[in-house]
Amino acid sequence: MLEQMGINAKTASRQISGLSAKQKNEALKKIAEELKLQQDKILAANAEDVKKAKENGITDVMVDRLMLNESRIDGMCSAIGELIMLDDPIGEVLSMTKRPNGLLIGQKRVPLGVVAIIFESRPNVSVDAATICLKTSNAVILRGGKEAINSNIALSEAMRDALEKAGLPRDAIQLIHDTSRDTATKLMRLNKYVDVLIPRGGAGLIRAVVDNANVPVIETGVGNCHVYIDETADFDMAVNIVDNAKTQRPSVCNAIENLLVHEKIADKVLPLVDARLKEHNVEIRGCDRTREILKDAKAATEEDYYTEFLGYILAVKVVSGVDEAIEHINKYGSGHSECIITESYKNSQKFLELIDAAAVYVNASTRFTDGGEFGLGAEMGISTQKLHARGPMGLCAMTSTKFIIYGEGQIR
Amino acid sequence: MLEQMGINAKTASRQISGLSAKQKNEALKKIAEELKLQQDKILAANAEDVKKAKENGITDVMVDRLMLNESRIDGMCSAIGELIMLDDPIGEVLSMTKRPNGLLIGQKRVPLGVVAIIFESRPNVSVDAATICLKTSNAVILRGGKEAINSNIALSEAMRDALEKAGLPRDAIQLIHDTSRDTATKLMRLNKYVDVLIPRGGAGLIRAVVDNANVPVIETGVGNCHVYIDETADFDMAVNIVDNAKTQRPSVCNAIENLLVHEKIADKVLPLVDARLKEHNVEIRGCDRTREILKDAKAATEEDYYTEFLGYILAVKVVSGVDEAIEHINKYGSGHSECIITESYKNSQKFLELIDAAAVYVNASTRFTDGGEFGLGAEMGISTQKLHARGPMGLCAMTSTKFIIYGEGQIR
Repeated sequence: MLEQMGINAKTASRQISGLSAKQKNEALKKIAEELKLQQDKILAANAEDVKKAKENGITDVMVDRLMLNESRIDGMCSAIGELIMLDDPIGEVLSMTKRPNGLLIGQKRVPLGVVAIIFESRPNVSVDAATICLKTSNAVILRGGKEAINSNIALSEAMRDALEKAGLPRDAIQLIHDTSRDTATKLMRLNKYVDVLIPRGGAGLIRAVVDNANVPVIETGVGNCHVYIDETADFDMAVNIVDNAKTQRPSVCNAIENLLVHEKIADKVLPLVDARLKEHNVEIRGCDRTREILKDAKAATEEDYYTEFLGYILAVKVVSGVDEAIEHINKYGSGHSECIITESYKNSQKFLELIDAAAVYVNASTRFTDGGEFGLGAEMGISTQKLHARGPMGLCAMTSTKFIIYGEGQIR
Repeated sequence: MLEQMGINAKTASRQISGLSAKQKNEALKKIAEELKLQQDKILAANAEDVKKAKENGITDVMVDRLMLNESRIDGMCSAIGELIMLDDPIGEVLSMTKRPNGLLIGQKRVPLGVVAIIFESRPNVSVDAATICLKTSNAVILRGGKEAINSNIALSEAMRDALEKAGLPRDAIQLIHDTSRDTATKLMRLNKYVDVLIPRGGAGLIRAVVDNANVPVIETGVGNCHVYIDETADFDMAVNIVDNAKTQRPSVCNAIENLLVHEKIADKVLPLVDARLKEHNVEIRGCDRTREILKDAKAATEEDYYTEFLGYILAVKVVSGVDEAIEHINKYGSGHSECIITESYKNSQKFLELIDAAAVYVNASTRFTDGGEFGLGAEMGISTQKLHARGPMGLCAMTSTKFIIYGEGQIR
């Protein structure tokens, strides 16, 4: 069954690989229209998912992630509208040079082919991912979580109906209806047909994919991010950035989990940070020095420094300077987003140079690590690996290249 | 043991990540000097490997791959000289834009970190791979075949001595001395320390790596390449290109294994091709139509069309036109190098557009798929996957990027 989906996806990917930007944009428009046409059906399917989830005693946060309503469907449609406005990267020739023997050699952007996405509860991912794939001429195989299966079926069938109305193959977008773990594992091993697999979800999902896949994987999402307040930092700026990076949306990957503070200013700046974070009831878990300064802070364990809390908890450590901060971050961090707050030119450059992460900031909140904020437009997730794509993945991350060579009979 | 090598490689990779191009070039020069200084030791170690290999009844071709001599060591040194002349890609900022909120966001080229290479019998790969990694500030872990173990130890120890003389960490270049399969498998699972794994060898090795690795892999090398002679082809050009692509060096991945011919000209061009290939005793295995034209051709099996012969055998098929040729190549090919010979503008563009391969040629031999021929300089292998790098991998393929962000206190 899954094998057949792979074959169908490969066939569809070849059929859509040569589409013009205009044809793809028309199909995207049809998808947005169809989502509105089938809105009642989609919301009814979603209501069923939400009902079951509540019966299973799922948390309010999870219910919120799962739930669709008219305004959320409008949100999907307006995201599609923005996607239509973006330039199509496919077909662009990145460079073309003439070799001494007269060969003209260029590198052309092409689709990846078949993209598989394994994601958890949010049903909107199926629309986001499928439309980004269509825009870049990739066929997609979606595998969502079992809590959202009825929503995902309704959404994907609406998108497939739209493809058919646009004269494109339905199988350019496929959803795996069987949500068993076994099927997910089989999908990870389908390297005969799938060109890349992107897991979108928590650390457990990502680890399972990396450990089991023979399909090339792009790791996304886990963010154990830090702010380091250097000796020369502006205290107001430091308090604002720490507050924003920790509390503006603590459940996302670009929120910070750790604060490092230079020992010479720790006794001055930590009480200011603490006072601000108390407004959001942030729990501080600190090293010994932190707890001398902030009497009510809990003790941080070694494990805490490795943890992505995704909530109102902040691990704090006082360090001897920028070198220890860099060492700590490169050891405990997940290579996502890291920030130094400093007025020192030398330390800012050192931090930018030596921190090994997808996004390295001087004097700005880590919350900006996002396709939209970086000016890339639509985003397929945030890669924390070094191969192929690193950081927010825009449309170009969904492409490969091929060399094209124009000759006149040259032999070697 | 392997875990410790991973830790050492990670540490070394951080120590060399900030080196200037000048420092790295001086170390590369020291490596070339040291290879000459330790030449006698290296050749003695190699002689031991060759002796054992002959005792084990290895083929002459394999002995030739394994053997080093003064001129081959000179070849390694001159390759290092050419590598020194190439621009260092590390540190280049690919773009920097100012966002509406004043953030300056750039993308900077950085090393991958720790690169592992699993290779088979040729000991020169250890020097080629290690020096390309050093040039791009990557630490390398080498794992060569057991036939070449003494040669690889001598070469890697010479390179490590050179690193030490240049004031760099010895562990920027490490060789795994244990050549058991078990150690290779453990290396494939070392994703805590290894950022990318590149297998260089036959189809069996590459399959084992893809199936077992949790480290991101770049697949290299398997080339089941085709030439398609279109209806309007220039016959002289066709014969020259087929001859060159098949016989100039049949053991390499960019040599062709298959010839497709348009049915309308098959009876005219196939005898010409056959006559030329007979000069090299090439065995032709053809479809029924081919065998009507070439009476002494053997019959091709379905399996033959999937096979990388790497020798003087050519599978031939008569097709109805460019569409069938494209379909055949996309089905049976390995996505390496594919060529059309045609005078038709329309068919040339169709072939370039629809063939799904790393390098697509019009009217030129597939033998040009090579870093040097493409103007990339040194080459780490030829990628046949779509993620990260596709086609010949030059220095840039050994890099990643990171976003660097200059702020003035921006929060979201």
